Amino acid sequence: MTGGRTRTGRPTRTGNAESAGAAAAVRVSAPATIGNIACGFDVFGMAVEQPCDAVVARAAPEPGVNIERITGDVGPIPGDPARNSAGAAARAVLEMAGADSAGLALELHKGIPLAGGMGGSASSAVVGAVAADQVIRAGLSRRQLLRCAVAGELAGSGSPAADNVAPALYGGIVLVLPGKTLQVVELPVPDELWVVVVRPHLETRTEDARRVLGEHVPLKAAVTQWANTAAFTAGLYACDWDLISRSIRDVVAEPLRAGRIPGFARAREAAMTRGALGFSISGSGPSVFALCRGRETAEDVAAGIRWAFGETAALDCEAYVSPVNRDGVRVEDVKAEED
Amino acid sequence: MTGGRTRTGRPTRTGNAESAGAAAAVRVSAPATIGNIACGFDVFGMAVEQPCDAVVARAAPEPGVNIERITGDVGPIPGDPARNSAGAAARAVLEMAGADSAGLALELHKGIPLAGGMGGSASSAVVGAVAADQVIRAGLSRRQLLRCAVAGELAGSGSPAADNVAPALYGGIVLVLPGKTLQVVELPVPDELWVVVVRPHLETRTEDARRVLGEHVPLKAAVTQWANTAAFTAGLYACDWDLISRSIRDVVAEPLRAGRIPGFARAREAAMTRGALGFSISGSGPSVFALCRGRETAEDVAAGIRWAFGETAALDCEAYVSPVNRDGVRVEDVKAEED
Repeated sequence: MTGGRTRTGRPTRTGNAESAGAAAAVRVSAPATIGNIACGFDVFGMAVEQPCDAVVARAAPEPGVNIERITGDVGPIPGDPARNSAGAAARAVLEMAGADSAGLALELHKGIPLAGGMGGSASSAVVGAVAADQVIRAGLSRRQLLRCAVAGELAGSGSPAADNVAPALYGGIVLVLPGKTLQVVELPVPDELWVVVVRPHLETRTEDARRVLGEHVPLKAAVTQWANTAAFTAGLYACDWDLISRSIRDVVAEPLRAGRIPGFARAREAAMTRGALGFSISGSGPSVFALCRGRETAEDVAAGIRWAFGETAALDCEAYVSPVNRDGVRVEDVKAEED
Repeated sequence: MTGGRTRTGRPTRTGNAESAGAAAAVRVSAPATIGNIACGFDVFGMAVEQPCDAVVARAAPEPGVNIERITGDVGPIPGDPARNSAGAAARAVLEMAGADSAGLALELHKGIPLAGGMGGSASSAVVGAVAADQVIRAGLSRRQLLRCAVAGELAGSGSPAADNVAPALYGGIVLVLPGKTLQVVELPVPDELWVVVVRPHLETRTEDARRVLGEHVPLKAAVTQWANTAAFTAGLYACDWDLISRSIRDVVAEPLRAGRIPGFARAREAAMTRGALGFSISGSGPSVFALCRGRETAEDVAAGIRWAFGETAALDCEAYVSPVNRDGVRVEDVKAEED
């Protein structure tokens, strides 16, 4: 590895697009994320170690952003940088930096399954924004990068929600406060916290998943939900596993969405009987997640969930088992012209 | 003071009703409380230093609970111990302790204004439960005392909610998790946190205040609310004043209830321009509260709120300024037969 690995949640370089020695090529990766974390619909998100999206970006002579290649789980992702979350986020960075004449060529690798509820669009937006910032040495702040990545997420997925973007950028477990200020609270991550994400081979659409919720929530369910977001937060600060476990419940979205995931109830049962702290839908699904204390339990829970989806619904799955990703976006193999 | 002051949130004496040397007379007081704390409708509550309800209880020859006198802000409080929250809570203790033959005489002093939204009924329930436990030396656990006080609150106010009862008993700032288990999470209290409670002379009914809410909440408001309960919790743990301030907002109940309190908008404006962290309705009103950093700001905010109610709505008020009460229920001047 020539350039080493640096965290860019807090950018490590500053400068501007016109300075000499701009990076020739940079590889940036950002992790999959779990939106909602059960109780915190649209406000909680957490990053996992695997899978990741990545981009290789280099300066190009022609102004603007050009997506040269998309590999991996490509599906129907548009190559048009205005409608692709990585491209749109990169464009937002050029615009914010006032780098009208800068040119950027991107090769995007989609490691995160499409339409899985694992924040793939948000991760692409994050790598697009950070890669652009690195290549043109714009030196944008974390908050500015977040704003650009959210613009990318909006272009790519149609949603301006930051509950996937923020953890993909910052890592860890975050609380995103609603409103235009994009305020993000980074919550403590207990050392032994492990995450299982399982994606059954099943396609659902985020827009459908939103529509099924309607525009109102029963007051009683809402009270339970806001008690649980407070309890989950307290559980993380106090490292109180019982409280964490008790609060990973979604009485608002899950009851309306779980029916779209065959085998969901059995998968939950499999997870909980194997010692998961909690189990729910990842984002708008169809992926599911479980939080566990320790690797061994997590491996066992993952096997149980896979088994349940196969047995009950004849669904193949990918399962990812990892600790919480604490770093967020990563910049690797930076090759500057001075090298 | 003969018996000193002890905390009984965690009971300091054990024994049972039949043991020799049961206390002849005990004085127990419990503080007013602010339910909801803006964002946490039905789940957050906090105790203040003033005002308080108190009871003087002594063993009596005839079995059962007898309320001999009610002083202070008496209003329409029933003397029938089955419908009076202190009496009903005391009865629940006798029953839980299996003390069928025990007799208890209560003198109840209502220091907390009636129907003010300051948790007066809950405080009476707490003093009733703890006084009974002390006099008969039942040695009930905190959780058992909470359960008995909630039974008293239900008898007195018609509501089984514990968001006033729990802070009156434990002190501090608490999160009450919905459900039959009555789980209470005690949250950290920043040292400089001061509280202003102002009660305009205006009568409203808790049941009306509930009815106005309806049974559904707009999803968007609910999302804001559960972001804010998480943010308030994080703010308390991290002692982050900005976050605390940003999260003391109620977009669910306050918009529907504030119209019942003349001068509310001006009172808020007066509080916020004088540096309050946040301002909202205390419980179901008509009292309002403000959280402040430090005594000086709190005194200034209290004066501003009083002025606004007087100026705008020609309403007299009582204002109470205190730090958060950290002790909850207090047992004073215990005179045991051995003395």
